[in-house]
Amino acid sequence: MAMVCLSDFEAYAKKYLPKIAWDYFAAGADDCTTRDENILAYKRIPFRPRMLRDVSVMDIRTKILGSEISFPVGIAPTGFHQLAWPDGEKSTAKAARAMDTCYIASTYSTCTLEEISTAAPGGLRWFQLYIHRNREASRQLVQRAEALGFRGLVLTADLPYTGKRRDDVRNGFRLPPHMKVKNLERAFEVCKLSPLDPSVTWNDIYWLRSLTSLPIIIKGILTREDAELAVRHGVQGIIVSNHGGRQLDEGPATIDALVEVVEAVRGRVEVYVDGGIRKGSDVLKALALGAKCVFIGRPALWGLAYKGEEGLQDVLRILQDEFRLSMALAGCASVSEIGQHLVQFSRL
Amino acid sequence: MAMVCLSDFEAYAKKYLPKIAWDYFAAGADDCTTRDENILAYKRIPFRPRMLRDVSVMDIRTKILGSEISFPVGIAPTGFHQLAWPDGEKSTAKAARAMDTCYIASTYSTCTLEEISTAAPGGLRWFQLYIHRNREASRQLVQRAEALGFRGLVLTADLPYTGKRRDDVRNGFRLPPHMKVKNLERAFEVCKLSPLDPSVTWNDIYWLRSLTSLPIIIKGILTREDAELAVRHGVQGIIVSNHGGRQLDEGPATIDALVEVVEAVRGRVEVYVDGGIRKGSDVLKALALGAKCVFIGRPALWGLAYKGEEGLQDVLRILQDEFRLSMALAGCASVSEIGQHLVQFSRL
Amino acid sequence: MAMVCLSDFEAYAKKYLPKIAWDYFAAGADDCTTRDENILAYKRIPFRPRMLRDVSVMDIRTKILGSEISFPVGIAPTGFHQLAWPDGEKSTAKAARAMDTCYIASTYSTCTLEEISTAAPGGLRWFQLYIHRNREASRQLVQRAEALGFRGLVLTADLPYTGKRRDDVRNGFRLPPHMKVKNLERAFEVCKLSPLDPSVTWNDIYWLRSLTSLPIIIKGILTREDAELAVRHGVQGIIVSNHGGRQLDEGPATIDALVEVVEAVRGRVEVYVDGGIRKGSDVLKALALGAKCVFIGRPALWGLAYKGEEGLQDVLRILQDEFRLSMALAGCASVSEIGQHLVQFSRL
Amino acid sequence: MAMVCLSDFEAYAKKYLPKIAWDYFAAGADDCTTRDENILAYKRIPFRPRMLRDVSVMDIRTKILGSEISFPVGIAPTGFHQLAWPDGEKSTAKAARAMDTCYIASTYSTCTLEEISTAAPGGLRWFQLYIHRNREASRQLVQRAEALGFRGLVLTADLPYTGKRRDDVRNGFRLPPHMKVKNLERAFEVCKLSPLDPSVTWNDIYWLRSLTSLPIIIKGILTREDAELAVRHGVQGIIVSNHGGRQLDEGPATIDALVEVVEAVRGRVEVYVDGGIRKGSDVLKALALGAKCVFIGRPALWGLAYKGEEGLQDVLRILQDEFRLSMALAGCASVSEIGQHLVQFSRL
Repeated sequence: MAMVCLSDFEAYAKKYLPKIAWDYFAAGADDCTTRDENILAYKRIPFRPRMLRDVSVMDIRTKILGSEISFPVGIAPTGFHQLAWPDGEKSTAKAARAMDTCYIASTYSTCTLEEISTAAPGGLRWFQLYIHRNREASRQLVQRAEALGFRGLVLTADLPYTGKRRDDVRNGFRLPPHMKVKNLERAFEVCKLSPLDPSVTWNDIYWLRSLTSLPIIIKGILTREDAELAVRHGVQGIIVSNHGGRQLDEGPATIDALVEVVEAVRGRVEVYVDGGIRKGSDVLKALALGAKCVFIGRPALWGLAYKGEEGLQDVLRILQDEFRLSMALAGCASVSEIGQHLVQFSRL
Repeated sequence: MAMVCLSDFEAYAKKYLPKIAWDYFAAGADDCTTRDENILAYKRIPFRPRMLRDVSVMDIRTKILGSEISFPVGIAPTGFHQLAWPDGEKSTAKAARAMDTCYIASTYSTCTLEEISTAAPGGLRWFQLYIHRNREASRQLVQRAEALGFRGLVLTADLPYTGKRRDDVRNGFRLPPHMKVKNLERAFEVCKLSPLDPSVTWNDIYWLRSLTSLPIIIKGILTREDAELAVRHGVQGIIVSNHGGRQLDEGPATIDALVEVVEAVRGRVEVYVDGGIRKGSDVLKALALGAKCVFIGRPALWGLAYKGEEGLQDVLRILQDEFRLSMALAGCASVSEIGQHLVQFSRL
Repeated sequence: MAMVCLSDFEAYAKKYLPKIAWDYFAAGADDCTTRDENILAYKRIPFRPRMLRDVSVMDIRTKILGSEISFPVGIAPTGFHQLAWPDGEKSTAKAARAMDTCYIASTYSTCTLEEISTAAPGGLRWFQLYIHRNREASRQLVQRAEALGFRGLVLTADLPYTGKRRDDVRNGFRLPPHMKVKNLERAFEVCKLSPLDPSVTWNDIYWLRSLTSLPIIIKGILTREDAELAVRHGVQGIIVSNHGGRQLDEGPATIDALVEVVEAVRGRVEVYVDGGIRKGSDVLKALALGAKCVFIGRPALWGLAYKGEEGLQDVLRILQDEFRLSMALAGCASVSEIGQHLVQFSRL
Repeated sequence: MAMVCLSDFEAYAKKYLPKIAWDYFAAGADDCTTRDENILAYKRIPFRPRMLRDVSVMDIRTKILGSEISFPVGIAPTGFHQLAWPDGEKSTAKAARAMDTCYIASTYSTCTLEEISTAAPGGLRWFQLYIHRNREASRQLVQRAEALGFRGLVLTADLPYTGKRRDDVRNGFRLPPHMKVKNLERAFEVCKLSPLDPSVTWNDIYWLRSLTSLPIIIKGILTREDAELAVRHGVQGIIVSNHGGRQLDEGPATIDALVEVVEAVRGRVEVYVDGGIRKGSDVLKALALGAKCVFIGRPALWGLAYKGEEGLQDVLRILQDEFRLSMALAGCASVSEIGQHLVQFSRL
């Protein structure tokens, strides 16, 4: 089976992963409408490709929060990578470093932050945080991450409670006994994800600020109002996200929400987006609409499921090649040439 | 089979109910376009979820016409509950009371109003009325309902004649001989639903007013013009309804009609909506667009068909849990925080 | 098999007619897009039904060009009725008279005008004319029709050449040897439909005017510009029609074109519409948008195919019942109460 | 099997061509969205047909860059015709001459320009050019073409790199060993299409201009901005094209892009379009929206695959008949009567 595009990896993962793991990764909330809209919304945005521009030398590198990456695609935070591949997040970290991009490690990793750091020293990594009822546990996590060289703190804002994913309910999903949410082992038992704190508010960003000098990126913003609040509370970046359609179903597709967030932010902080990226040309559209970088969630897991570190590199390399080709065919030789003129705005 | 969401109950009912009963409950008029649009229209309304609001303490209670209910979902009037479960409307009344919400009992119940009252004393109930050619029969019904403690009178306005439901015609639908429309037994034989009065007009609301001190709620309004007339004729509430798509096919979906009715009413009376509610997030959308409460028809029947009183409680509990979760994920901790800002209005 | 709605007759005809006949009647031009759009376009027009209006006494009669008919549905001109039923147009004429409505007999009838007249004396009939290269033949036809008591002359304007109906080409469609286009037998052999005159222009309406005192109705108008020309050239009526989607594919659905034609005509002549009528509520929509009457083509043939005169009466009776019921459910007690307020205009 | 419309030829080719050849011709980039949109976009443009205009004498001839052709449909440049038929481009040239229209021979022909010229002396032909890194090779090609009597030079602007066509990657597509890209044999080996020059810019049009006195037509323009640049750089014609959806996926359908290009060009040069033409009425729509002529790619290959020169003539003849009939049914007797009034512009 030739692995030509990301859906080849999806088909592989669906075929070879245990059903309960596949279902967990694939799950969307309720009717999975938002999960699927994330993908469909990209298709509704037509390009306006330009011709006869010198694209013989292509430069697809970019910077996020000052760190250079090989192309504007990073790894979004997702939990439980050992469900996809035995070495779990250690493989993810190695692949991200090999491809010279950013990996956002999840609180719900099945490897410790220390294991992740040791597996790929020097890689660009951010740490994703859920704030727990036990604030001391969260404080320790943040400070461990900073000490280990993580270079950004990603606060997930859209999970005061876990969304209703019907298949997980039917399957009675929980981690197999030999896997642990290791980062939290010392603090408490979290297999049921229960100790998240639903009372978190914008003021808690000030509390986070007091704990760390890392840049704070807020993840899960979908409206101009919340984008404005995020900027006012001093974050350094915003990830437009609907948690892969796993939280509130029937909210906006992320690429649609990106437009309004970018407009509200007016360049004051960097804006990223995740959800629905399946081709290099999706990356190009996201950048044309103002994203500084995109993050992939499920496709990274499919890559892991295929061949661990190597499989994830394959996924990233395909996206990289497709992104470079899309740029060239649209008439852009470097990321700095990408702009809103590349897409048909009136159809949004 | 795990009962995770309302469509699980639908699948159960379709499998286990006699075909003639399933067809009767499922029927829509003509091509069933409106029946199906009621559901699809909800999907066209995207949320604008807000983040980082304290949702640790959730309050989903509300009041309708002064009576508090545990959450803004009641039981719409539907006929012939014994087709779904042997104890019929007695089970419905018990489940509604157990879940602390409102049950609108239909004129076409297969239990008497007295049986319904006795089954669940103290429950919040409204009585749904069709005005018959024999006005004396209708008068008696209204006054029996008031005497039995029903707290609202729901006048159905959209059935001067019965809509054309093709499957019922093909099946030659009529009640099995051992079931009766008991409330009307003393007055006349109604198996064919014939004695409804198609000459009813707005002035008959004054006649109803003269019979009872109960609040009058009019059901079946779909336009701003009729909403204005309803307010002017002194009703206390409006249920935006198209009779589950069983009357005039190809009218508006109720959630679309709700917007114009709410605008026309300008808060002078309470507005409710039925039709197409299949998830807790549908309830949230209806409230965001101005409904004080929603009512469920077919899903209640599926619950009855599953396990009678207990099955209907399951249906209501699932809706309640989903509604609470949707509210939290949209950033609302109480019903009073729900408003039009929660939905993408421009797409309506 | 119960015949409950028009699609039951369609299914019957598809099952029992010889394939070559079914294909001929069902055929649309090219990709059949317009044929199908005629039906779909009705579904895109939502009703705005009104409640609590006295609909106990329903009056569905109307007048076309001064002649009263039992309800606003007539029989559109279609050819070769003997392909559907042995008695052909004689049965059609009888059914139309029995149901007290108008039948437009086609030039391409398989019975003579005399046979049609004799079969149902006194019935309201119009005669549909194609102008042939042999103008004398056309003149004779017009004058025979007038002498036989036909009360209108319908000039088909959209067939300078026959549209490309792929199935007819594949089937090598031609009339079976025992059938004849009898009206033209004396003049010439027309099995291949060839002698139509593609040089006809608006001025030929003056020529027709000189031949007969019958009202002239032009059939096949789809634009405001042609509607204006029709009025200026002195026709008495316009049938908005795309020939059932059998001529130029991908023109407008007739119900969409009706709106612009009605606006252009501003009441100066009567406007009718054919194409896509499948339910009584379609008739109501057409009248709400300004049609004085609709005409049915294929459904009449399905009725003939089912049981000849009796089958066509069944079709008409179903449409009549559905139309009456739709009117009542929309809040109209008589045809004069039907108006644009009944449909959601903004969605057109 | 009767060959009635172009999709009959498509079905034939799909059935009888080797899979690798069918896949190569059918391929679109990525998800094939643009390839399919090219066709679907035509369906979204409704005609406004006019009636009662004298269409007894039809004139469908037109001129492109001063040369008369029998109807406004030419053969677009496509590669490797020997994959479809043993005689390859020689058959194509003969069919185009027999039908009195223009054939744009591709750089990637499997016959030499000399063979093509000899096969059909006197035929109207243009030569399509990719500019190679080896400019000398390109110069020779241009001058050979001019010397052989080709009457136009078509510069393809949308292929700095080859688009990602998944099936070709899976199939490992390359020419069979007995076929050659003969025009380039003397210069270099091109089976992998690699030596195209991605550094080409608008200035290279001046270089081409210096090589030849042939009119230069630029192919692959999709935006008003590039149309303006093309005019300013002195081209004689523009082919609005997205390379059959084989380059950047999710750009505009060509018929949609045509409108904006025609507006930008304001008659200063001729504008043509390719992509998605499947019926004579598509040609009529393209002309109504401002194209001087259309070019067909895949349908020509299907015709070749069916019966070589004869099969391609069949395809062209069908399109010609359909175009003539569409014109007549829309009320146009000659190409000069075609205009924007024929289509419903507001729906674009």
